[in-house]
Amino acid sequence: MEKNSETIPDIIVKRLPVYFKHLKKLKKSTKEYISSYELAELTGFSSSLIRKDLSYFGNFGRKSYGYDIYCLFQELNIIMGFNYTKKLIIVGAGHLGQALIYNKGYQERGYELKAVFDKNPKLIGLYINEFEILNIEQMLKFVKKEEIDIAALTVPQGAAQKITNLLIEAGIKGIWDFTEVPLKVPEDVLLEEQHINEGLCKLSCKINQNIEE
Amino acid sequence: MEKNSETIPDIIVKRLPVYFKHLKKLKKSTKEYISSYELAELTGFSSSLIRKDLSYFGNFGRKSYGYDIYCLFQELNIIMGFNYTKKLIIVGAGHLGQALIYNKGYQERGYELKAVFDKNPKLIGLYINEFEILNIEQMLKFVKKEEIDIAALTVPQGAAQKITNLLIEAGIKGIWDFTEVPLKVPEDVLLEEQHINEGLCKLSCKINQNIEE
Repeated sequence: MEKNSETIPDIIVKRLPVYFKHLKKLKKSTKEYISSYELAELTGFSSSLIRKDLSYFGNFGRKSYGYDIYCLFQELNIIMGFNYTKKLIIVGAGHLGQALIYNKGYQERGYELKAVFDKNPKLIGLYINEFEILNIEQMLKFVKKEEIDIAALTVPQGAAQKITNLLIEAGIKGIWDFTEVPLKVPEDVLLEEQHINEGLCKLSCKINQNIEE
Repeated sequence: MEKNSETIPDIIVKRLPVYFKHLKKLKKSTKEYISSYELAELTGFSSSLIRKDLSYFGNFGRKSYGYDIYCLFQELNIIMGFNYTKKLIIVGAGHLGQALIYNKGYQERGYELKAVFDKNPKLIGLYINEFEILNIEQMLKFVKKEEIDIAALTVPQGAAQKITNLLIEAGIKGIWDFTEVPLKVPEDVLLEEQHINEGLCKLSCKINQNIEE
């Protein structure tokens, strides 16, 4: 299997979680192979785009069979780095932060939740799903010492850049940002904005079109 | 301004929340116009794709100035149906459901949260951010009577399809699905899967590439 050794372009990285989601479901079915046309049906991407994307990672296709679902899923896991352990903290233990403590998606993606921080004295010291909420003043030292990779940011908008600066100072590799604030980070720090309301936008747009028709 | 009166293709609908996010930020700045090249820089889409997408909605460009940010934002709001009121309920008042009660993104997208349902007797009757958690047994009647448009689904995976069937029976127009279960809905019901862990996948993938380099 010959693979492309270049860095995967951002535009392809954006499509990987979509492939992952569908292959994870398919893997649980009795189906062994899937064609690019079937994948196009599931993902909404064109079949030629899918063939191009997947050829980036090696040759999993068998003529007239399609792609081997199990192999493709395994390779996707490796490409996405889900086989590496990455250390995660949550900064901001408000409603969304607390919901993230209970998120069941970490393990299968190779993430380990290490700590949760907040500045609210009413929250500090509380245990939520076996995690003690720690004082945010301990965060900088903790991130440095434990070599934390990623911080989920669920702090109020007004505090977002200040906390981000602290995380950068502590050597964080990436920020999983829920604040909807335009954050400034240096080039070597990864920033992923998680848009919780994206689905709501799409639904509104489609309902609107149905009304107009 | 000549607009395309066809239904907007799904692939464009998917890009609209991205334009919305950036234009919302730009509108707050002193900038009046933006070029497709600057928008490409911000969104990660190609400038030719952007010009094609935006021409779908009318002609907001001025030669050598670029697009009028305010006009484009206003038009995008109309296209996305944010000027219509859509009635929303939350089904499942667990950790994520409770975080959604506090979500501040509804109003600007034209959504009105009308009620929250759960089957847990410990939650029913509690008030969260002024919303009383209602018994899920009242849901079907409520959705019918109040003509609810959208249900945010944050129930346990095992209950997801059963609740979805009830919502369909009640005449729901769309489901904003957080369950990560493959739900079956008829063609005339909209389904938007909200992937809370998508950003985490992208971060993992990028960190992995940095390790390998």
